[in-house]
Amino acid sequence: MALPLASHGPRPCLCSPHCGSLTAPSGQLAIIEYLEETRPTPRLLPRDPKKRASVRMISDLIAGGIQPLQNLSILKEVGQEKQLAWAQKAISSGFNALEQILQSTAGKYCVGDEVSMADLCLVPQVANAERFKVDLTLYPTISRINKSLLALEAFQVSHPCRQPDTPPELRA
Amino acid sequence: MALPLASHGPRPCLCSPHCGSLTAPSGQLAIIEYLEETRPTPRLLPRDPKKRASVRMISDLIAGGIQPLQNLSILKEVGQEKQLAWAQKAISSGFNALEQILQSTAGKYCVGDEVSMADLCLVPQVANAERFKVDLTLYPTISRINKSLLALEAFQVSHPCRQPDTPPELRA
Repeated sequence: MALPLASHGPRPCLCSPHCGSLTAPSGQLAIIEYLEETRPTPRLLPRDPKKRASVRMISDLIAGGIQPLQNLSILKEVGQEKQLAWAQKAISSGFNALEQILQSTAGKYCVGDEVSMADLCLVPQVANAERFKVDLTLYPTISRINKSLLALEAFQVSHPCRQPDTPPELRA
Repeated sequence: MALPLASHGPRPCLCSPHCGSLTAPSGQLAIIEYLEETRPTPRLLPRDPKKRASVRMISDLIAGGIQPLQNLSILKEVGQEKQLAWAQKAISSGFNALEQILQSTAGKYCVGDEVSMADLCLVPQVANAERFKVDLTLYPTISRINKSLLALEAFQVSHPCRQPDTPPELRA
C-alpha cells in the first residue's frame, strides 16, 4: 500500500517509501481522488453527480479556502504576534460559509448519511479550529457532524492528535 | 447553460442567473469536475488514472496552494505596504514547485498534449504573476505552456484581461 510521505514544499505526497517521484500524486484532494479511482472501496464520492459536486465543493472550501491560509508557513510569514488572530479570522470566515452550506447538504455526515471526502477534510480542520481556540458553539452543524465522525474508529485512529509527529502538547 | 455568477464569500459558484442556491457547485475545481461529469465533451481530464492524478495535483497546487494566498481579501488583510512582496513570495514559492512538476508531466500543455483542467488553472495564475511582476524567465516550462495555451482561441476570449469586470488598467 502506498503511503503519504514526502511533499512538494508544504503539500502531502502519495508515494511508496522509496519513491521520491515528482509524478506521484500530491495535494490532499488529488490523492483522495486518485485513491477513489484506483481503490473504489470504500467509496468516498457518491454516485449522483450533484451530490459529488456538493462533496467536492465542501472539500474545496476547506482544503483550498481555509487550510492554506492557516498552515505553518503562512503563520510564520504573518509573525508570532498576529498569527492567532489571523488563523482565527481565516477559520471563522470559512466556517461561516461552511456552516450555511452544510445546513443544505448534511445528513448524519457532510453530504447525506455516507462518509465522503468532505468528511475527511472536515475533521482535521475542526481539530485546527480547536487548536486556535475558535468558538465552535457558533457552528452547530459543523460540531454535530464532527462528533458523529469521531464516533467512527477510522477517524479516531487517524485523528491529528494521534499522528507519529504530533507535538506532545497536542497529543490525546 | 449554467453560468458562474454568485459566490460563497470569495469563491466562484456555478448557478443559473436566478438560482442563489447554496447547493449549486462552488469552488473552481468542484465546478470543473461537475462539468466534466455532466458535460464530458471536450474532456478536461485524461482517461488514465495516473495522468488524471497529475492533472488534479497541478490544479490543486495552483487553486489550493497559490491562488488562495494572493487573492484580494488576503492582500487586504496583509496591508497595502506589504502586499506586493507577499504576493510575489506566494507565487514564486508555488511556481518553484510547479516548474519542477511540469518538467515531468508536460507535453505541449501541462499534462501531455491535451488541454486539461490543469491548463485552465495555469493561465489565470500566470496572468496574476504578471500582474504582480514576478520574473517569469525563471519558469521556462510554465512560460512555454502558457504561450501555447494563449495561442488557442478558447483561452484568448476567456483571458482575465477580457472579463466584463476587468479593471481598465488590466484590460488587453
